[in-house]
Amino acid sequence: MSEYRAAADVVVIGGGAIGLSIAWRASERGLRVIVLERDRVGGGTSRVAAGMLAPIAEVTPGEEPLLHLGSESARLYPEFVAGLLEASGADSVGYTRCGTLLVARDADEAQALERELELRHRFGLRVERLRASEARRREPGLAPSLRLALDVPDDHAIDPRALVPALAAAVRAAGGEVRERSGVDRVALAGDRVAGVVLADGSRVSADRVVIAAGVWSPEIGGIPVELQMPLRPVKGQIMRLHDPAGPGLVARVIRMGPSYIAPRGDGRYVLGATSEERGFDTTVTAGAAFALLRDAAELVPGVSELVVDEFAAGLRPGTPDNLPVVGRSEIPGLHWAVGHRRSGILLAPVTAQLVTASLLGEPGADASPLTAAIGPGRFHAAPAGSPA
Amino acid sequence: MSEYRAAADVVVIGGGAIGLSIAWRASERGLRVIVLERDRVGGGTSRVAAGMLAPIAEVTPGEEPLLHLGSESARLYPEFVAGLLEASGADSVGYTRCGTLLVARDADEAQALERELELRHRFGLRVERLRASEARRREPGLAPSLRLALDVPDDHAIDPRALVPALAAAVRAAGGEVRERSGVDRVALAGDRVAGVVLADGSRVSADRVVIAAGVWSPEIGGIPVELQMPLRPVKGQIMRLHDPAGPGLVARVIRMGPSYIAPRGDGRYVLGATSEERGFDTTVTAGAAFALLRDAAELVPGVSELVVDEFAAGLRPGTPDNLPVVGRSEIPGLHWAVGHRRSGILLAPVTAQLVTASLLGEPGADASPLTAAIGPGRFHAAPAGSPA
Repeated sequence: MSEYRAAADVVVIGGGAIGLSIAWRASERGLRVIVLERDRVGGGTSRVAAGMLAPIAEVTPGEEPLLHLGSESARLYPEFVAGLLEASGADSVGYTRCGTLLVARDADEAQALERELELRHRFGLRVERLRASEARRREPGLAPSLRLALDVPDDHAIDPRALVPALAAAVRAAGGEVRERSGVDRVALAGDRVAGVVLADGSRVSADRVVIAAGVWSPEIGGIPVELQMPLRPVKGQIMRLHDPAGPGLVARVIRMGPSYIAPRGDGRYVLGATSEERGFDTTVTAGAAFALLRDAAELVPGVSELVVDEFAAGLRPGTPDNLPVVGRSEIPGLHWAVGHRRSGILLAPVTAQLVTASLLGEPGADASPLTAAIGPGRFHAAPAGSPA
Repeated sequence: MSEYRAAADVVVIGGGAIGLSIAWRASERGLRVIVLERDRVGGGTSRVAAGMLAPIAEVTPGEEPLLHLGSESARLYPEFVAGLLEASGADSVGYTRCGTLLVARDADEAQALERELELRHRFGLRVERLRASEARRREPGLAPSLRLALDVPDDHAIDPRALVPALAAAVRAAGGEVRERSGVDRVALAGDRVAGVVLADGSRVSADRVVIAAGVWSPEIGGIPVELQMPLRPVKGQIMRLHDPAGPGLVARVIRMGPSYIAPRGDGRYVLGATSEERGFDTTVTAGAAFALLRDAAELVPGVSELVVDEFAAGLRPGTPDNLPVVGRSEIPGLHWAVGHRRSGILLAPVTAQLVTASLLGEPGADASPLTAAIGPGRFHAAPAGSPA
């Protein structure tokens, strides 16, 4: 009903780690940015993310573009965090260069781990093969039944629940605006290009550039022709948060075995993760998942049994058909995508912010770098008839 | 500071299932009763109780008095519930005559179950020995690996979270008063007998009869000479509440194996229990307990894995040195005890209410029945010098 209008250079739809990182970097570069978040900042998938910054542990054959993107973002992280602490005034965002151990419990898993080692060496990544005794020397909390481990010192971690409020503070400190409880109904077009957004309450924000960074909820945003929408789907992940009444020290590194991990926060808190389930917009937590998380974690680190359970939660990762994010200009002038980061939204926030900011500023070559080639929105859209092949 | 005074015939300290049952029955008999609850009614141990009414499943050699007390209370339950529904106007308190299956998974457990069967037959209790195939015919959700089962049709269940508010409504309907957020500082004596209580805020309630029914928190109540206090200790129990998105039907009976159980509410909700831990006033929930509850339940009924976890909580059972409750007149005239019900507070509420009400009314023989002989408060107190042996 309301015809209230505000104006900005850029509207970012979505106040999670991705949207806020973009808004911060764009604000720093002099753009007037408004972030519109339907819930609270960080109330969506970022709230449930474990915060592993682990491009090396997560290398998957055939997903080399993700490795390059992740490695570049990991490289940016120290400076990103330093700038963020300064800009936001936050004491810490839980950034720890803790390293990661990949572990195997039996001969089959050890054989698989040897292949993982070989794959990483092929990419020139720093990974050290450890016998069980050496792994247990470095992490005495590991189970005696351990068979083999790989030490990945360059895979780190951050606390997403500290990161997100710091990003929101940094956006505001740089002159941007962050509006919570402000769901967007649709993108507004003027002719063939973006003119702003219409909120759920009917009010409007004018802007000639709009960034969609609403994760798995992005397809709910109207105003975009269906053939230019993104094929996003929710990939449910269940995690458990715990703490050690005895304080930190159970493990210092992230411990991983297949899809299961124990991620230490460095202060006696731990996150166990994570399932990957295709169940639509279901965020219930189930007995089977709780059992599997606890079983795997206690098999790797028996002391997990003594931890206090603080929270059991599920989040929805935005998945894409090729498991790569969608970052870049849309075919609609003024519309930018920053979605589909699946398991890697926290890791990829710095590089995504850098790429999208360059594109928003119209920097030469911003959408034509080797990094962006694989992640452009156009890959999911059939070229219209008569357009160049 | 306040000198505000109220007056009643009876003050009941503690608004859990025990205290409210006493208050209801005493109010019905014409006594003016005030219940003082430090938190919300049912906010303590009753909130976490699973609500099994299972004197037969829980028979323990050497604890025959508990069997007699439990059997008597189970016998009272149908009339107790019918009266409560009428008095409170509640639709249901989740009372189901569901029966209980005790199950064994291997030869050792089956041998132990045969001894349990023999023990119950010795007491003339109705228990049916079932081969695995017959048990699975009655409960198709049971695991195929089952070895042997005992069907105990007379062990039932109730929903404590429905029972407690109905009891509070029934107290009020009978003219009694239930005050929440009203912690008691101490029992007030006049000469050698009870004169009422002093609340934490300094206000007073006069009454010549006081019932202590504050469970594991009872020893915090002042004014009672230390040698007449009760040796209560917290026995921590961790439980998990779940529901089946597919509705009821996974199991119809309570399924038990040793200390582990799955208690159906009849509407698709289930409670898994329970640990027994001596950890003082610790109500944290732990990874190890969650794992054990889920493992045992899924081993008995694999479909448990599909359930949604609603809550994981810990309660503090009031334990006594001989595992029997303390019900009856104190050595201090006017002071009555109704504490120490450990695992059986919900089961024993009707019989406790009946015994304490008779005692409050001074009915002949009220504290000298075969039922009360084993549970009187005097058993923990050395006879004072010069008193009769």
